[in-house]
Amino acid sequence: MEHADMNLCELLNRRDQSLGVGAELFYSDPIELVRGDGAHVFDRAGRRYVDFYNNVPAVGHGNARVADAISLQQRTLNINSRYVHEGVIAYAERLAALHAPAIESIVFSCSGTEANEVAIQMARIATGKRGIICSNAAYHGNSDLVGRLTNVRPGGNPESEDVHSFPFPDWYRPVVSGLSEEALAGEYLARISEAIARLKATDVGFAGMLICSIFANEGLPDLPQGLMKRAADLVREAGGLVIADEVQAGFCRTGHWWGYQATGFTPDIVVMGKPMGNGVPIAGTGASHAIVDAFRAKTDHFNTTASTPLQAAAGMAVLDELEEQHLLENAQSLGQVLKDGLTRIAARNTHLGEVRGRGLFIVVDIVTDKDSRTPDQVLAAAICERLKTLGFLTANAGAYKNLIKVRPPLVISLGDIAAFLETFEAITFEMDAAH
Amino acid sequence: MEHADMNLCELLNRRDQSLGVGAELFYSDPIELVRGDGAHVFDRAGRRYVDFYNNVPAVGHGNARVADAISLQQRTLNINSRYVHEGVIAYAERLAALHAPAIESIVFSCSGTEANEVAIQMARIATGKRGIICSNAAYHGNSDLVGRLTNVRPGGNPESEDVHSFPFPDWYRPVVSGLSEEALAGEYLARISEAIARLKATDVGFAGMLICSIFANEGLPDLPQGLMKRAADLVREAGGLVIADEVQAGFCRTGHWWGYQATGFTPDIVVMGKPMGNGVPIAGTGASHAIVDAFRAKTDHFNTTASTPLQAAAGMAVLDELEEQHLLENAQSLGQVLKDGLTRIAARNTHLGEVRGRGLFIVVDIVTDKDSRTPDQVLAAAICERLKTLGFLTANAGAYKNLIKVRPPLVISLGDIAAFLETFEAITFEMDAAH
Repeated sequence: MEHADMNLCELLNRRDQSLGVGAELFYSDPIELVRGDGAHVFDRAGRRYVDFYNNVPAVGHGNARVADAISLQQRTLNINSRYVHEGVIAYAERLAALHAPAIESIVFSCSGTEANEVAIQMARIATGKRGIICSNAAYHGNSDLVGRLTNVRPGGNPESEDVHSFPFPDWYRPVVSGLSEEALAGEYLARISEAIARLKATDVGFAGMLICSIFANEGLPDLPQGLMKRAADLVREAGGLVIADEVQAGFCRTGHWWGYQATGFTPDIVVMGKPMGNGVPIAGTGASHAIVDAFRAKTDHFNTTASTPLQAAAGMAVLDELEEQHLLENAQSLGQVLKDGLTRIAARNTHLGEVRGRGLFIVVDIVTDKDSRTPDQVLAAAICERLKTLGFLTANAGAYKNLIKVRPPLVISLGDIAAFLETFEAITFEMDAAH
Repeated sequence: MEHADMNLCELLNRRDQSLGVGAELFYSDPIELVRGDGAHVFDRAGRRYVDFYNNVPAVGHGNARVADAISLQQRTLNINSRYVHEGVIAYAERLAALHAPAIESIVFSCSGTEANEVAIQMARIATGKRGIICSNAAYHGNSDLVGRLTNVRPGGNPESEDVHSFPFPDWYRPVVSGLSEEALAGEYLARISEAIARLKATDVGFAGMLICSIFANEGLPDLPQGLMKRAADLVREAGGLVIADEVQAGFCRTGHWWGYQATGFTPDIVVMGKPMGNGVPIAGTGASHAIVDAFRAKTDHFNTTASTPLQAAAGMAVLDELEEQHLLENAQSLGQVLKDGLTRIAARNTHLGEVRGRGLFIVVDIVTDKDSRTPDQVLAAAICERLKTLGFLTANAGAYKNLIKVRPPLVISLGDIAAFLETFEAITFEMDAAH
């Protein structure tokens, strides 16, 4: 087929036929992408978009080091982990060292879903109990078990026999209003204790808490100092393990290597994914020797295309890029510019309720008005559509789908951020006036 | 570290530390691999092994077309499926066409486990019931749900509330002895009906049957003509869907494109994986528009690193290689040479009970003696170790772990097969004399 003849409508029809009607798409007027370079992607007409959404290509779209590494490794050897391969071992060692001393061994898999499955199995084996608690607006993956921890999606079931949820620590729309910060912290901790107690009251028992270290899908709430440490202590006092889902939070995104460093707690089990391979499917679950060895002994776990030389090559190239391109520092310094800019814009706009987040992961909470703080999902979607039309990719997300999620590849430049802020200000000013 | 100084013992110790004690390894004396080329792999000392085991590198270790394809795509663009990408659509179309007319749309994922999770969710949504039946010696993956269909592994639970099993159709060690072929077929079909009836007697109900199309892990039983079609009819008459796990059977392995063509039935849902990306993590679940669209509508399913341009590039390159290198024909003609050779050797050896299989997937059933047909796992493992020492990779497998699994990359040559047969004959003759 001649590409010039192929219009998007025809392509969307083919997509419905071949991938199924309802396969998720961004934007009411979707875009076809054909090329990427750093923080930029291009559609078929050559139109450029600055990517302010995607965390998977953290070290840049079209990253040459990653492409070269996987090409060389695939051409050299890519084989399952029942044969010894030094590259896989060296990668596991390097990852574990980034979490030292809590994390000592890594079990690799191919997706965040698989890595969370492993984490839950580890917690269950370590504790001899089955019950897991999670937040009431979590997303941790799409399998039968992990999907039951997903309360933000259609068909998500907030409570099942072995999964109970607690209200995520929301300071902008608190679960109880009028409390002091300390009283509200106590309230949230009490809700966690209640969820644990409900599990302990049954045969299921309590195995652990699985949370995104920064509550990304919940909306990056601003947490008071020490809250997460107190939550982790509660979990351990109740005999459970603390599982930090770092699939969104990890690999320098927050201006820290790991999200749990940003929110101040130490996990027993960490789950890594998404940016780990810059688009090559890799995920991993890390824990202490005791936890991992017990898991290995009980499950005989094996994953054919995980723990491979290909995964290790991609993962190593990503770590090299993060370090050599100083992307941790980029996330810190440019993240601050981004947040300060958005905060300044929000202060003058009725519908920009709050700006939250850390590093290069910021959300703007879109509201009908600042007094009621009522989430405005429609306006949030409209802002994302408008930004897209003007060449900036974002998406709306969060527990109420009313957040503008601003999360560019870590290679984003100061110039791109300045351009984004200028456009964001203009759009939201216009919309404020129109409402 | 100087590689010359690094011995395997040290490497295994590092592996225990970084991946966990008990991470699966082949051979009591494991091997470290550093390079592969076609059907050959090489250890650090430069020693060559002919690979007679691995189905993932179906189009060859170090395949240049796959390496070039993923390198080019990763350098060009690799992004999640919420943006439209023509390559992903074209790949789904090409895959579906290979299953036409039963299969119309594909849901991609990153592993066989994930693809089986999707298949079960599809069957549950289509039928409104939850119960799945599988064979009593199946392996379909490692998640909480799919792991419950896995009866061959430590910790596997053959029966749970929503998973019931039936004895796999074994003609070498029949579930009831002394029956005619037709009577035994009736017996196996009755066991399937019983498993369905057990589910239907509860609130769980019956959603479908998930089987490997060729019962690979069970040991590639020789099935009478028409048995699988009758089993599929039974399942559909009971209101369930037939799910064909093609993760091992698919992509020309059996001398057919798909295992269900070899065993003669048409699935409602197919699950693909392993050789699909020649080592790049890709899997897929295919079904009719009705089944896939209903799944999409109910689940809002999304998988960040699946349905990507990278997966499509790898998958397309594999399909190109299968076709252009005539690997279907290779599986047919060389598979026949391999099976005939092994059958000839087995006829003269007390411990080689039976040779079964199709195309380039053959098993030799190792027994204490041909009269009792008692599985001899220890001897099977010893043969694999000895073959490895002499430069040929195989492994023992099957419901009794007493099968020598002979399953080379599809690019294997006639010369390699002749060398393997010669060595296999010499080893087993020696062992026969020694026993």
